[in-house]
Amino acid sequence: VFVHRETVRFRDLDSMGHVNNAVFLTYLEEARIAFLFGRGATTESIIVARVEIDYRSQARYGDELDVRVTLDAIGRSSFTYSYEVLDTASGRLVAQAKTVQVHFDYEQNKAVSIDDDLRAKLASPVTR
Amino acid sequence: VFVHRETVRFRDLDSMGHVNNAVFLTYLEEARIAFLFGRGATTESIIVARVEIDYRSQARYGDELDVRVTLDAIGRSSFTYSYEVLDTASGRLVAQAKTVQVHFDYEQNKAVSIDDDLRAKLASPVTR
Amino acid sequence: VFVHRETVRFRDLDSMGHVNNAVFLTYLEEARIAFLFGRGATTESIIVARVEIDYRSQARYGDELDVRVTLDAIGRSSFTYSYEVLDTASGRLVAQAKTVQVHFDYEQNKAVSIDDDLRAKLASPVTR
Amino acid sequence: VFVHRETVRFRDLDSMGHVNNAVFLTYLEEARIAFLFGRGATTESIIVARVEIDYRSQARYGDELDVRVTLDAIGRSSFTYSYEVLDTASGRLVAQAKTVQVHFDYEQNKAVSIDDDLRAKLASPVTR
Repeated sequence: VFVHRETVRFRDLDSMGHVNNAVFLTYLEEARIAFLFGRGATTESIIVARVEIDYRSQARYGDELDVRVTLDAIGRSSFTYSYEVLDTASGRLVAQAKTVQVHFDYEQNKAVSIDDDLRAKLASPVTR
Repeated sequence: VFVHRETVRFRDLDSMGHVNNAVFLTYLEEARIAFLFGRGATTESIIVARVEIDYRSQARYGDELDVRVTLDAIGRSSFTYSYEVLDTASGRLVAQAKTVQVHFDYEQNKAVSIDDDLRAKLASPVTR
Repeated sequence: VFVHRETVRFRDLDSMGHVNNAVFLTYLEEARIAFLFGRGATTESIIVARVEIDYRSQARYGDELDVRVTLDAIGRSSFTYSYEVLDTASGRLVAQAKTVQVHFDYEQNKAVSIDDDLRAKLASPVTR
Repeated sequence: VFVHRETVRFRDLDSMGHVNNAVFLTYLEEARIAFLFGRGATTESIIVARVEIDYRSQARYGDELDVRVTLDAIGRSSFTYSYEVLDTASGRLVAQAKTVQVHFDYEQNKAVSIDDDLRAKLASPVTR
């Protein structure tokens, strides 16, 4: 499990005083990019195809959140992460999510096979 | 089916030059609020519990998007919408989504039954 | 004076229930891009060098705002806009701003002279 | 001088691949809130009245930025900060800014005098 930490910004809140539902996708995105960069991969040929997220409790201004990322599966042209977002201080579960990413050729505008290099990087331990 | 129109802002794009995945949740939110306001309901006691979204094609700067909202079901304390996001000009499907909302008591910090008034409003035709 | 209309989104609010100060720069940006596109210019070689903004009154959810843009001056490599943001319904002044844009060569990473083509477009009436 | 550190998120970028101009106001806001909280003050009765910002160089994904905040002046009902935003790694100047905040009574919808308690807190050293 790879863990990425985010701090809630004031701009992440909405008028209900809690983190807006859309902003959690930004937290997942930051965790996902850190996961990829930590394995020497880039994000340039990866596109998000699907997100599911369950909001379990509210997050507030200044909360530190741990985004725990697990690589669930690597298919021919896509791969799947699952996430738990936890309040760092209390361990309280804030959200659970899954995302599907597709290896994408922006010029051809279509999904392409995950090559061996990316496949190896996705499956590797964090190296930096 | 209720239709809400959004125009893509420059700030909605990310460095890939397309609308960022998180921003679609903002488009869904705008459509949902317009749906509720159009039926005389408010958003104050409603919280998003779950989102699933499938990204079908990319949206670009200045695109006008139609967010088509269908109320799928009303349960004891929750209700479900499904959405289609279409490019207005071409009719191209951009995204499909489902969201679950919970009738929520922020003071008690828990889900509460949907009262008859809200139930009637959710099921009513748009009145304004 | 060129006028661009924006509608306040829920995500534009912060926990004070009004449009967050940073979001006004997004409204100015949308108006500025519409100004350029309406004259056949693009935004690719233009970078924002300075913003000043005075917040005159609060904007709320669903407000329609008119952003009135005036081209104040065109210099050798920069040009200046001034703006008034008004509540469309009431005419109430919401904000006043000035921005300085620089004609920028991203490859050389430096300001470059505004060529005659861009100069003519900036000074032209809206053509589309 | 009070220093607050921010990390650039992917969502902070625009399609030019650099931090969008509006997002810098979010960085200033985070620094300002940290300044106030560190002195036992809150943000509830403070509203931003004016911002000026000069963009000096571009910020990129993953950059760590130090926002250096100086309290310039405290008037009857307003106070002024100046800021320098620096790239932490290189010390490069990214932006300079000034903001004016007003002590605001949201119920009366008008500026009110800065009371002795807030005045003392603003002028105090960081205590937590």
